[in-house]
Amino acid sequence: MHPYELTLAQASRALDARELSPVELTDSVLARAEATHDELNAYVTRTAEQARRQAAEAAREIAAGRRRGPLHGIPMALKDLIDTAGIPTTAGSAVYADRVPGEDSAVAARLAAAGAVLVGKTHTHELAYGLTTPQTRNPRAPGRVVGGSSGGSAAAVADGGAVFALGTDTGGSVRVPAALTGTVGLKPTYGLVPVAGVMPLSWSLDHVGPITRTAEDAGLVLDALTDRRAQGAPPGADDAPAGLRIGVPANYFFDRVDPQVAAVVRAALARLAARGAKLVDVGIPMADTVHAAHWGVMVPEATAYHEQGLRRTPELYGDDVRGLLEAGALVPAVDYLRAQRARTLMRQAWHTLLEEVDVVAAPTVPAPAAAAGQERFTWDDGSTEAVANAYVRLCAPANVTGLPALSLPAGHDDAGLPVGLQLIGRAYAERLLLAVGRAFEG
Amino acid sequence: MHPYELTLAQASRALDARELSPVELTDSVLARAEATHDELNAYVTRTAEQARRQAAEAAREIAAGRRRGPLHGIPMALKDLIDTAGIPTTAGSAVYADRVPGEDSAVAARLAAAGAVLVGKTHTHELAYGLTTPQTRNPRAPGRVVGGSSGGSAAAVADGGAVFALGTDTGGSVRVPAALTGTVGLKPTYGLVPVAGVMPLSWSLDHVGPITRTAEDAGLVLDALTDRRAQGAPPGADDAPAGLRIGVPANYFFDRVDPQVAAVVRAALARLAARGAKLVDVGIPMADTVHAAHWGVMVPEATAYHEQGLRRTPELYGDDVRGLLEAGALVPAVDYLRAQRARTLMRQAWHTLLEEVDVVAAPTVPAPAAAAGQERFTWDDGSTEAVANAYVRLCAPANVTGLPALSLPAGHDDAGLPVGLQLIGRAYAERLLLAVGRAFEG
Repeated sequence: MHPYELTLAQASRALDARELSPVELTDSVLARAEATHDELNAYVTRTAEQARRQAAEAAREIAAGRRRGPLHGIPMALKDLIDTAGIPTTAGSAVYADRVPGEDSAVAARLAAAGAVLVGKTHTHELAYGLTTPQTRNPRAPGRVVGGSSGGSAAAVADGGAVFALGTDTGGSVRVPAALTGTVGLKPTYGLVPVAGVMPLSWSLDHVGPITRTAEDAGLVLDALTDRRAQGAPPGADDAPAGLRIGVPANYFFDRVDPQVAAVVRAALARLAARGAKLVDVGIPMADTVHAAHWGVMVPEATAYHEQGLRRTPELYGDDVRGLLEAGALVPAVDYLRAQRARTLMRQAWHTLLEEVDVVAAPTVPAPAAAAGQERFTWDDGSTEAVANAYVRLCAPANVTGLPALSLPAGHDDAGLPVGLQLIGRAYAERLLLAVGRAFEG
Repeated sequence: MHPYELTLAQASRALDARELSPVELTDSVLARAEATHDELNAYVTRTAEQARRQAAEAAREIAAGRRRGPLHGIPMALKDLIDTAGIPTTAGSAVYADRVPGEDSAVAARLAAAGAVLVGKTHTHELAYGLTTPQTRNPRAPGRVVGGSSGGSAAAVADGGAVFALGTDTGGSVRVPAALTGTVGLKPTYGLVPVAGVMPLSWSLDHVGPITRTAEDAGLVLDALTDRRAQGAPPGADDAPAGLRIGVPANYFFDRVDPQVAAVVRAALARLAARGAKLVDVGIPMADTVHAAHWGVMVPEATAYHEQGLRRTPELYGDDVRGLLEAGALVPAVDYLRAQRARTLMRQAWHTLLEEVDVVAAPTVPAPAAAAGQERFTWDDGSTEAVANAYVRLCAPANVTGLPALSLPAGHDDAGLPVGLQLIGRAYAERLLLAVGRAFEG
């Protein structure tokens, strides 16, 4: 086994035991990233020299008995939407092609303080406004999209070009590429992880979250991103999933879903039930309102943020993104406000739902990785749906409500494509979701 | 001196000393309200019977040695926008002519718990969406408007028909009628006083605040409305205004202001300076943006709240208000969002300004009470301005920024019309403003 294949937790234990040095680990990850770069194109900027310096510094500190914590000496990747001082941060946009921020984003600063080693900046769908990241290929599904918008981060983690990565999630952009690459993606509760220094797509819906190989790893990254390290396991976490009430949606989350995806997710739920979880049929409240509330907030906020740039240099935007940004200018304020008010009602309704059950389980995406260039999915009822809309559909509820959501690798379809199991929990109940995830992996 | 002429503090001391009973005080206030009702029309609903019952109950409690606090047994009025259980609450609108809320608003409940006696519900400009309250006459200026939208509350307090009252303030609706009637009006920091159970005009800008006869009284009401009773006097309050740096705006707040109003306000500032305050010329930041930020937020939010009613029963809205509500439907979301983002910048700029000085002093309104039916003011530069726009203009900065603002009676113009002095302070610095107000009154 190469060091780059270790999970974060495994690598961290090996570093603690001095069985592995940060330099060795970083060299292995850098070599992997280099070896598959032409094939995958996960990274837009690689920072190998800086990574080697950081690894050598971590090695000195660890040798001196001063390991800072589980991320110290661990190679990681940051989505190119996340500011890094002195390192280009382009947001996947020609508008920002030459942009080099002077300061770290809050999350980059926290990870640097935790001693993580930056391998580079990963490709994002242009301005994070899309679900495919066409620049990057899917290491688990040749010829298929990696998902987005944090596609480069998921590709790097899935392939071994980073031990963990950060992405951002406004409508599934952490969870969708995690699901399509067989990795773990966590969208934390709205506001828990600071977004300062991360380019907004829609500030009412934006989240930063980790992409990792295991739920355990996601917990280690979340600890470093928040100040909740000392917080113990929540009630029920130690025995998870035994005794947990897992809500299985009777509507919305299994509608217009690829039958193989649904079967893999239901099989995963059966495994959790076999380990003591109680599956409870639940109705998803205000399901008809999810799309309107999500788009009604996202589209005008995105346009408000980018309208000056769009006016100055429209030619620097891709056709799809420019179309969306132009459409945002036409949304009336009352529709935006109606969408925001619907979110309040939806939060209350989900709060009630999550008194009945501890988590809600569902597919992350209704179909596995689409073929590169594929525009629509065709569902069993004969209807078709744009790929981006399908990928957002089952993720958006957690953005609209701000609730935490975890995507776990649940298995594969007959073609060997990864399928994601999504767990949605109560506000700030990340650790319960992660405990279920660890139990599911175990 | 009739009991109805006492300030809240005076009446409270007399009640404590058993020199006055709540029944006697309430009877005096009710008689005054009755005597001038036909002339002023401050109240839309009077609750004399209930008031007498509450006063009798307060008398029993006080006789038993259980005075709850300074508001116990004090007759007060609530703007008819503020829900009161079992008592009509119409928001000055034909749409809500038959509305009787089942529950108290948060502020009504707090005042009831403090033992205040409800005299009645006071007239508001229709839906609080205007600055004149044409139903009500100004007790200090016959033939002139009382201001609005909390015009009935100010008229009642100025005339003796209530010892204190609550109003709401989205663009000056507490401070404007206070200034025009020679009373004190406090708009607290955004969010300090709960708005639950108060009909929104624009929830990002709405505030509930007291109208009283003195700054001391406003502090007593604020204590009952918040949970900050135990909070001591802030630094500098004990010696106020000695040592305080009072910012005198070099722009915006004295532009297009009636010269007599400006002279009365500058004379008031000179009195504060004579008592040790340091007057400092300051520049008002982003002054050109105030109007756009205020209207850009208020107009679409008001329409969003009322759009269903407007669609169902357009004939139940006054022409002016209907016009504003219809205009709100045309505002693009990006303009609303630009206005909200401008507010963030404005808050930061005012925060910096209020590091240089402790408070900013200005006129509350640029002209005293307009004649009933008057549509525009004419300024010295020959320009004219709609009365409502003029009344909002100097109040809006504190709504846009959320900063606390206090209007004090500063004197009178040559025609004997009251002129208001406005003090704007740092977030949550109500008690410093009130200390300056008390010193100014002293």
